[in-house]
Amino acid sequence: MYLSDIPLDEAWERFREALQAEGLWQPLGAEKAAVEMCLGRVTAEPIWARRSVPHYHASAMDGFALRGRGTAGASERIPVDLLVPTDATYVDTGDALPDWADAVVPVEEVEKVPLASGSGIRLRAPVPPWSHVRPMGEDLVQTELVVPAGHTLRPADLGALAATGYSLVPVWRRPSVAIIPTGSELVRADVHAPAGRIPEFNSITLAAQVQTWGGTAERFDIVPDDEEQIREVVAFAAKTHDLVLLNAGSSAGSEDYTASVIASLGEVLVHGIAVRPGHPVVIGMIEAQGGAQHRTPIIGVPGYPVSAALTGEIVVEPLLRRWRGLPPAQPDTIQAILTRKVHSSAGDLELLRVTVGRVGERIVAAPLSRGAGVISSLVRADGIVFIPSGVQGLEAGERITVRLYRSPAEIDRTLVALGSHDLTLDLMAQFLGREGIHLASGNLGSQGGLVALARGEAHFSGCHLLDPETGEFNVPYVKRYLEGKPATIVTLVGREQGLITAAGNPRGLRGLEDLAGSGIGFINRQRGSGTRLLLDYHMSRAGIVPQSIDGYEREEYTHLGVAAAVASGRADAGLGIRAAAAALDLGFVPLFQERYDLVFPGEFYASPKLRPLLGLLDDQEFRAAVAALPGYDVSPMGHVVWSSA
Amino acid sequence: MYLSDIPLDEAWERFREALQAEGLWQPLGAEKAAVEMCLGRVTAEPIWARRSVPHYHASAMDGFALRGRGTAGASERIPVDLLVPTDATYVDTGDALPDWADAVVPVEEVEKVPLASGSGIRLRAPVPPWSHVRPMGEDLVQTELVVPAGHTLRPADLGALAATGYSLVPVWRRPSVAIIPTGSELVRADVHAPAGRIPEFNSITLAAQVQTWGGTAERFDIVPDDEEQIREVVAFAAKTHDLVLLNAGSSAGSEDYTASVIASLGEVLVHGIAVRPGHPVVIGMIEAQGGAQHRTPIIGVPGYPVSAALTGEIVVEPLLRRWRGLPPAQPDTIQAILTRKVHSSAGDLELLRVTVGRVGERIVAAPLSRGAGVISSLVRADGIVFIPSGVQGLEAGERITVRLYRSPAEIDRTLVALGSHDLTLDLMAQFLGREGIHLASGNLGSQGGLVALARGEAHFSGCHLLDPETGEFNVPYVKRYLEGKPATIVTLVGREQGLITAAGNPRGLRGLEDLAGSGIGFINRQRGSGTRLLLDYHMSRAGIVPQSIDGYEREEYTHLGVAAAVASGRADAGLGIRAAAAALDLGFVPLFQERYDLVFPGEFYASPKLRPLLGLLDDQEFRAAVAALPGYDVSPMGHVVWSSA
Repeated sequence: MYLSDIPLDEAWERFREALQAEGLWQPLGAEKAAVEMCLGRVTAEPIWARRSVPHYHASAMDGFALRGRGTAGASERIPVDLLVPTDATYVDTGDALPDWADAVVPVEEVEKVPLASGSGIRLRAPVPPWSHVRPMGEDLVQTELVVPAGHTLRPADLGALAATGYSLVPVWRRPSVAIIPTGSELVRADVHAPAGRIPEFNSITLAAQVQTWGGTAERFDIVPDDEEQIREVVAFAAKTHDLVLLNAGSSAGSEDYTASVIASLGEVLVHGIAVRPGHPVVIGMIEAQGGAQHRTPIIGVPGYPVSAALTGEIVVEPLLRRWRGLPPAQPDTIQAILTRKVHSSAGDLELLRVTVGRVGERIVAAPLSRGAGVISSLVRADGIVFIPSGVQGLEAGERITVRLYRSPAEIDRTLVALGSHDLTLDLMAQFLGREGIHLASGNLGSQGGLVALARGEAHFSGCHLLDPETGEFNVPYVKRYLEGKPATIVTLVGREQGLITAAGNPRGLRGLEDLAGSGIGFINRQRGSGTRLLLDYHMSRAGIVPQSIDGYEREEYTHLGVAAAVASGRADAGLGIRAAAAALDLGFVPLFQERYDLVFPGEFYASPKLRPLLGLLDDQEFRAAVAALPGYDVSPMGHVVWSSA
Repeated sequence: MYLSDIPLDEAWERFREALQAEGLWQPLGAEKAAVEMCLGRVTAEPIWARRSVPHYHASAMDGFALRGRGTAGASERIPVDLLVPTDATYVDTGDALPDWADAVVPVEEVEKVPLASGSGIRLRAPVPPWSHVRPMGEDLVQTELVVPAGHTLRPADLGALAATGYSLVPVWRRPSVAIIPTGSELVRADVHAPAGRIPEFNSITLAAQVQTWGGTAERFDIVPDDEEQIREVVAFAAKTHDLVLLNAGSSAGSEDYTASVIASLGEVLVHGIAVRPGHPVVIGMIEAQGGAQHRTPIIGVPGYPVSAALTGEIVVEPLLRRWRGLPPAQPDTIQAILTRKVHSSAGDLELLRVTVGRVGERIVAAPLSRGAGVISSLVRADGIVFIPSGVQGLEAGERITVRLYRSPAEIDRTLVALGSHDLTLDLMAQFLGREGIHLASGNLGSQGGLVALARGEAHFSGCHLLDPETGEFNVPYVKRYLEGKPATIVTLVGREQGLITAAGNPRGLRGLEDLAGSGIGFINRQRGSGTRLLLDYHMSRAGIVPQSIDGYEREEYTHLGVAAAVASGRADAGLGIRAAAAALDLGFVPLFQERYDLVFPGEFYASPKLRPLLGLLDDQEFRAAVAALPGYDVSPMGHVVWSSA
């Protein structure tokens, strides 16, 4: 079985043709469902009112039903008296008018009077015919269109359908989808997974996607890498479900059985789609078995979690929409400016995850991690950019179209922080979230953040840059990078930086000088980060050259990344903050105290959009939460260090 | 019990204070739910990774794990050989690296060679440490934030939570809501309702709203208007649910028991909110009973269906959001131009339903019926406009803010037709819906439609206006109303107009002359409609004066409205199309043949946006569907009658 990537369009063409041949490129079939169960279901027919609403002439007030014509002459001076109940009869709101009546006078507009032949009411003004009456069909006339076919039913629609005589509603059947995880290395996500065993969670993502898209999902038990077992389960699932998703084993490795299983049970239509992440996608049809009317489509979904989720979006979702009687999705899109250059492989359609925010007048999109295994990139994504095959990449500053995962209103409420990442930003996101504000933070390092600010791509930037000339934090850099643009620097926290080591500091490290020429494996931070600068500053003061440190060239992008490298034995030590060491129960050798500031362009510092964030710096609950992090000093929080605004 | 309307803000202030006093102005409480059941649930805590992803160093390829350092010198000329499995060992993608290894070489980059001490592999290039390895924590490091508190969980989030060690997720409890319909006039919507008995469907709308907003709803049986019975049911529901919705009986009529029931079981906080539609809203608290910790909020929801649904939106939804740990909703809004003048009562906040579309560069909003009983106005609404109290009304052409019920992308795909309504427009909506295009049609009558076209408020207009001077249809009017703006007129259908009578034409009507001075009750169409013009033209030719026709001044806005008036006995006859008579099995006396055209401003006739609609005029399926309507002649369909474009 060999993989041969074809463009997404071509893959869909083959799939569509095969579905059409089976009569499956259309809604799956109609059923009648109880109206109260139809929220989110799609109508299979236009629905015409079976009865009018109201279905009779109804009083719109509590009052007396009467003949309007008989009151034409009534006035203050010459009132008209009507005998009750012969000429006027009491009705409550909603009551049917008697046959002979054509109007209602509200109870508060009449006097009750004794009349010769009984009791009556006195009117001092005419009551025109049809006043205070809801005539039959005022809302909907029998035979009128209530909702068209292909309409997704909302709460008021259900009310209208019930009102017009529908207790059962013709809706398209919900597609049933079997999700089969395969792989001997997989264990259920809720049990302990030793090294080499992978918690199975793709089926959870895929099932939730199917649910979101209006299908019903059944998650099968994990099937080990045994071709015969997989074949048996697939054959069963194809008999009992409308669609089968077979997860992993879709590539061409020694234990990738998806393609051969499908070939043996039916036909492989596609093996490999030129899309990144996600390309080893298999599409096929399983032969009809037993009394089945048609073949069953099956999709071999790649194993990497981002590939799996995106395969759901580009292959499963369009099919489920078709089956549910809906036209292709037309997601909300937004034009945005790309913050960073992105290379892409010219042969593949690339699905780039981005965070999006409105910074001043510009909408900016910052690329997230592109790894197929990095599911956190989907968690953090505000949208996705389709970079067509044939495009080698995109430049920073280029205008791009983003398909949004959030609503435009949410994008407007997003604060964009690009620069150095700090744990307090996660807490900040937490607190701002309570007020409905989304904080999208991108980790570019301190210098990267200032570059982004200068380009107008962020609302603020976390920064801890020590100037080697003056020993001063941040101010010299802000002056240099922002080139005279007005800005304000506010301190967020003081932080302790030091060597993160294995628990108990088994190598007995005391400072940077212990690293040089020692054979101790070091893990560094990326160029442009404040921590890298701090390291270089102190190395140069101590006369230590990079070549003498084993691993100086190995870079991580976050403090926790450094800590993780140490925790896993990938390195013996790295420079980072105490909180990162404490988080993973590692050793920590304190070396330096540094100032972590927030840098605001002048126009944003004073803007209402930033007020909730600045308010947090005085918020006792927020300060307490930060102070609880190991190695954090909140006493300087909120201090305005410098301003040219 | 008296109603005393207070502003919505003040009502909410009272309600919030009472809820705060009970500890109920906050999320209801956390629970742990199985991760696969958490789609759409809201996190009760920030969730930090319990394990790293991957949780071990994993091979990213099928290949051989080895020590990268040992291959530093490998080249084409001086290859490095490694003994298997001592110095290199085979791994599949996802396998854990052995302790001693730090890199993987893909299987396709090695030669297998026999070595003195066993079999081995030969490398002709160095393999740098950590190449083709997914290091532990590459995606998420243990302790890292996965999702913040208050986050609504999406499919990829569930995958990430399962991946980081969560089989149970702390989420806020779903609010449980009891919905109690009351009213002796109510019958279940699925049984026959005689005149005077109203099908109960508000509970279906309210339950679907609660479901949409993340709560669970229980619909109670209908309770008759019996104060004691209502009290018993309410007391029970308050013990078993977080919130009680008591539907109807919230006003101050003789059988409106909501306020007194609440007063007897607890406290009425609000009786009447100055909002239209919807004002007789009651808000109260039921005393804690049995072992309950706190009082239970109860809302008396008005009986008119639009009032009920909007009470859900402005009172229930904000509470459910708070209880679910979400910040107040910030719906998508859009700036639009109002198409028609709207009066509003200065003392009330008015919730105006509108249809919305993008016509050229302008977003236009057309008001829908404002009746509290007209649920079809909610079905057809694309959004809602809040007209604050203190505003007497809005002018045509005024800029307004619309809270959208549809996404901005859907609004962009909306075609706006304002003018004469015809049944074929419903069929058109049907056919366009298949292609994801929404047709929003507003019935302004033919002349109203031309006025709207002249103002740039619609994409096209249905028109059947007979010029009394020339006997020509539409062209003279288009010239006059569009004042030289380029336009194109295309015929949609020929229609038969005549007298709609009771079944069997019991009065034996033969023509208009039978109406004059006959005492026959007539129902007319509104001024500006083509049918009204047709009537006036033929009345004037026959020398019939309006005063001689009983009911000339009574107006309906649609053909079906006229037919409904006749069907219900509200009138004996009206002028309308054959299809309307046929729909309600009425009599029909054919009198005139008329031409119903579509008028397109020049810029839209040629635009891609209108292409699918114009394509329908040649579509055999569409033509057949129209031809099946009684009295319709499709032979002239698509004929371009006149163009100045």
